Amino acid sequence: MTVPTWKWFIEYTSSTQAHMHGVKDYIYCGETKYQKVEIINTDTFGRCLILDGKIQSAEADEYIYHESLIHPAMVLHPNPQRIMVVGGGEGAVIREILKHPSVKKVIMVDIDQEVVDLCEKYLPSWSDGAIKDPRVKLYFMDARKYLVQTEETFDIIISDLTEPIDDGPSYLLFTKEFFIIAHNKLAEEGIIALQSGSFNPIIIGCHSAINNTLNLAFNHVCSYAAFIPSYDATWGFNVASKKHSPDYLNKEEVDSCLRERNIDSLKFYDGETHQHMFSIPKDIRNSKEKENRIIEDGKPLFTY
Amino acid sequence: MTVPTWKWFIEYTSSTQAHMHGVKDYIYCGETKYQKVEIINTDTFGRCLILDGKIQSAEADEYIYHESLIHPAMVLHPNPQRIMVVGGGEGAVIREILKHPSVKKVIMVDIDQEVVDLCEKYLPSWSDGAIKDPRVKLYFMDARKYLVQTEETFDIIISDLTEPIDDGPSYLLFTKEFFIIAHNKLAEEGIIALQSGSFNPIIIGCHSAINNTLNLAFNHVCSYAAFIPSYDATWGFNVASKKHSPDYLNKEEVDSCLRERNIDSLKFYDGETHQHMFSIPKDIRNSKEKENRIIEDGKPLFTY
Amino acid sequence: MTVPTWKWFIEYTSSTQAHMHGVKDYIYCGETKYQKVEIINTDTFGRCLILDGKIQSAEADEYIYHESLIHPAMVLHPNPQRIMVVGGGEGAVIREILKHPSVKKVIMVDIDQEVVDLCEKYLPSWSDGAIKDPRVKLYFMDARKYLVQTEETFDIIISDLTEPIDDGPSYLLFTKEFFIIAHNKLAEEGIIALQSGSFNPIIIGCHSAINNTLNLAFNHVCSYAAFIPSYDATWGFNVASKKHSPDYLNKEEVDSCLRERNIDSLKFYDGETHQHMFSIPKDIRNSKEKENRIIEDGKPLFTY
Amino acid sequence: MTVPTWKWFIEYTSSTQAHMHGVKDYIYCGETKYQKVEIINTDTFGRCLILDGKIQSAEADEYIYHESLIHPAMVLHPNPQRIMVVGGGEGAVIREILKHPSVKKVIMVDIDQEVVDLCEKYLPSWSDGAIKDPRVKLYFMDARKYLVQTEETFDIIISDLTEPIDDGPSYLLFTKEFFIIAHNKLAEEGIIALQSGSFNPIIIGCHSAINNTLNLAFNHVCSYAAFIPSYDATWGFNVASKKHSPDYLNKEEVDSCLRERNIDSLKFYDGETHQHMFSIPKDIRNSKEKENRIIEDGKPLFTY
Repeated sequence: MTVPTWKWFIEYTSSTQAHMHGVKDYIYCGETKYQKVEIINTDTFGRCLILDGKIQSAEADEYIYHESLIHPAMVLHPNPQRIMVVGGGEGAVIREILKHPSVKKVIMVDIDQEVVDLCEKYLPSWSDGAIKDPRVKLYFMDARKYLVQTEETFDIIISDLTEPIDDGPSYLLFTKEFFIIAHNKLAEEGIIALQSGSFNPIIIGCHSAINNTLNLAFNHVCSYAAFIPSYDATWGFNVASKKHSPDYLNKEEVDSCLRERNIDSLKFYDGETHQHMFSIPKDIRNSKEKENRIIEDGKPLFTY
Repeated sequence: MTVPTWKWFIEYTSSTQAHMHGVKDYIYCGETKYQKVEIINTDTFGRCLILDGKIQSAEADEYIYHESLIHPAMVLHPNPQRIMVVGGGEGAVIREILKHPSVKKVIMVDIDQEVVDLCEKYLPSWSDGAIKDPRVKLYFMDARKYLVQTEETFDIIISDLTEPIDDGPSYLLFTKEFFIIAHNKLAEEGIIALQSGSFNPIIIGCHSAINNTLNLAFNHVCSYAAFIPSYDATWGFNVASKKHSPDYLNKEEVDSCLRERNIDSLKFYDGETHQHMFSIPKDIRNSKEKENRIIEDGKPLFTY
Repeated sequence: MTVPTWKWFIEYTSSTQAHMHGVKDYIYCGETKYQKVEIINTDTFGRCLILDGKIQSAEADEYIYHESLIHPAMVLHPNPQRIMVVGGGEGAVIREILKHPSVKKVIMVDIDQEVVDLCEKYLPSWSDGAIKDPRVKLYFMDARKYLVQTEETFDIIISDLTEPIDDGPSYLLFTKEFFIIAHNKLAEEGIIALQSGSFNPIIIGCHSAINNTLNLAFNHVCSYAAFIPSYDATWGFNVASKKHSPDYLNKEEVDSCLRERNIDSLKFYDGETHQHMFSIPKDIRNSKEKENRIIEDGKPLFTY
Repeated sequence: MTVPTWKWFIEYTSSTQAHMHGVKDYIYCGETKYQKVEIINTDTFGRCLILDGKIQSAEADEYIYHESLIHPAMVLHPNPQRIMVVGGGEGAVIREILKHPSVKKVIMVDIDQEVVDLCEKYLPSWSDGAIKDPRVKLYFMDARKYLVQTEETFDIIISDLTEPIDDGPSYLLFTKEFFIIAHNKLAEEGIIALQSGSFNPIIIGCHSAINNTLNLAFNHVCSYAAFIPSYDATWGFNVASKKHSPDYLNKEEVDSCLRERNIDSLKFYDGETHQHMFSIPKDIRNSKEKENRIIEDGKPLFTY
């Protein structure tokens, strides 16, 4: 008789739903000034970064999450040079951004230096050295404060935050007020892309409210999504743009843009993947329409 | 202090991965001649049918699974009249088939009458009376034996089976030999569609092997997939056709076919959903290519 | 690869401690006017009665619980004739009481007739017909109200209640006020015995508070305990007596009393067991001394 | 809504029974040459040592386990001077032994130096410095080999081993052959005490077989047990003696022996506790009698 696995990480998505991940090793367990951090090793997904009890990214499939977050916005922009990253502790966001040869400057602002250092130490393949590229600057501070103060202008802002939870470090970076600040710091063809909560039709309220709120600040806003195996979920993203509608790209244009930019190392994203992500099932389109919440500083939104 | 939920259904997808569903009520628990049957009620997904420890369909999202399985094949066929259903115990497959006005005859062959009766009793909205439609005939026997013996010819065969597990009732309905039998009973423009295992890039081997095997019997074979919330997974389907390539349909054609057939009650499937399901992410296309197993009677394939 | 058990009953004893019981079958699931009722079948313990998420008794070891609750009090009394049972839904309490030949009348007062009926239907070996003995009378009402109104006097009162939880049906039957009422309805040599919470030294507060409170109403009060496998815990009882100190019985006296009364069918209780149960480890004696809470109607005690 | 604890250690006691412990921190995770080692911190029990998935001892209640294992044998011997410890990695066994002032020499033989070092580092209160006492000698080797080779004679041997599991390091230290070797190295009044598996009446086979096997080598053998909260179980021990029957001690004699030896720091063990542990419930006495297995090198016994 074999004894079953005895170390489990249980990710609760509600009080009556959860995912169980058998843990091979606990690599790191600690608490920073802002959040609880765990790095575990699992049979199925390899190393995983967990913040406040929620899997952020996993060795086996972080490429799906990070390519999905970065490339649609980068491809939509004809010439992305100056990029800001809000959050993005693992460094993989920068790794993907730097694949676009036009990029001249990347400014990453993450509130939690300890998480960035832990990822460099325990998950080095996530950033794959990108964090030390001479074009990259790191600031450890509140990204909203940074944006208010800076005189920089950006072509693209990538928001890679933990989900908005009560007392968590990120909930004021999902509000109307924040999106207006971001809009003001974007150049004429500027674009913002952000991870935006579960795309499960049953719990799509958080995603939809972010989408609604972005619409108050931007001309063009699009939802899209990708299935992330280590989340056991289809995950939503929003891309919002001042000038170019994200809809205007088709399969062939995405492929030809990637070809022109000599980007051939992607594992997940290409023209067909783009079409998959931006074609949204009917039930989700309908669910989204029913949500009319707007997120404001004084009326923040929290997820489980 | 509130006491947490104490009844859990834990669906193991491997020895170190599982999904936990809090159970509100156990509606039914039993064992037929062929399999263990449970019907539970959950907070998130309502009533769920569980066979041999695996969720088959759930009140809240069975429409996703059943619309995905039925409508691509039905829309691909210009005039589907005679339909065979392999398995399909819940009756929802028939419900969806009958939405196409050209249908004249539906023959459903399920080995397990007890499951069909339990679904009629406890999950009546699944079949919604369709099972009693005069065009429908039910046979309780092995579907493969039926197909070998029958003199009927079909426009479409829908295979809605439990996953192939050792000692389970379905594994000989996923083999090359079975697909050749099915091919022979299909009319000139005939099509088969089948649920075909997880579409998770990490465990896509079963899906890919079914796809490979279909290619030995049919001219045109296409994978497609949909995210099923109650499975916590993106689920794969295959559609195989003697004449029409499933690829040739675009978004607009799907919408116009549904319009012509006066089908306006679908919650999940339409042109954009079709495009979503048939656009396959790059990593999955690559994973599929690496699998070269063929499933044969003497070399069956089993999943966890 | 074998698929693990997928139906689990998880009994939480705190927010970070729980016991998992694999369920073979769900026999019954429902809710009475007073509580949630489940009857499950497990590999290890056979059928189990669960009220409000807590195992009450199990086929494999209910004899331990019920013999422990009944026989010390019955043996302590020289001639127990009139017995009252507070709660005791499963009927096993009566089964044990009737083993003493001096018993002339048993009055059982349980608030929840549905539980009694469910036990008769699904757990018939618990009462083993005892409930229909001509000496037995059942009343379905609040036991405290009954005691206040009745003109009966009793030799022994057995309290077999669920644990006191907020909104639960039993918490006003563990208070000083209730114990004084009980004392007044007991004859000169009267004794009360009651199940009294976990005897785990780490969470013995509830048991100790009941013990303290009994001491306000009775001359002699003794704690004792037995390990109940299906609880994964050592469980505490209290016996309180107007005249005879429970301490005065030794191993040999218990054995000779059982012999005189021709009671030879017990599986758990005898002289050596009595000595085991009434000899209390030093750490528990010390923990008990530290607790000084008294339970009153206006200051009830609740457990997790 | 509070998110529940997400790190769980699940101790399986069979394929359908388990205990869940919420983990506050993972202190250490690794694998020695002999076994998997984890040190966790829990809310309820503080730090816990886990070997091969089984809790060995916990900060909150290791005193129960260690006092139970050591003191009955030590008190039974009129003048224990030379003690051997088989296993005993945490060092707490030595801590308890040294409380007896007659002790002149303690030889501890544990196969796994890494575990001893980890305990000294992470669980220092377990040995509380005892391991460095000048009377103590540590050898890191197979205890059976040591015993065969040594020319030492002992008054008492304490066996504090992990449970016998297949491929585990301890199963050849529970056999008839080992007990005969131990008997030969004990002085005339020599005694051996050992942890001996669960005392749960449902799974007492392992304990009983050890008891049977000891009876082949020793004149007097006694079972006894204590409830260990962090095991959620009553745990069995055996004490076997060449000359003095363990039965002959009563409550008062234990207390007076402890008093004479000036041992007043015990939290669990005293005369009443002794009487509790050595008085065995009737069902367990009967279960024990039914087991007649003998453990031999060629017919070892394994637990789950």
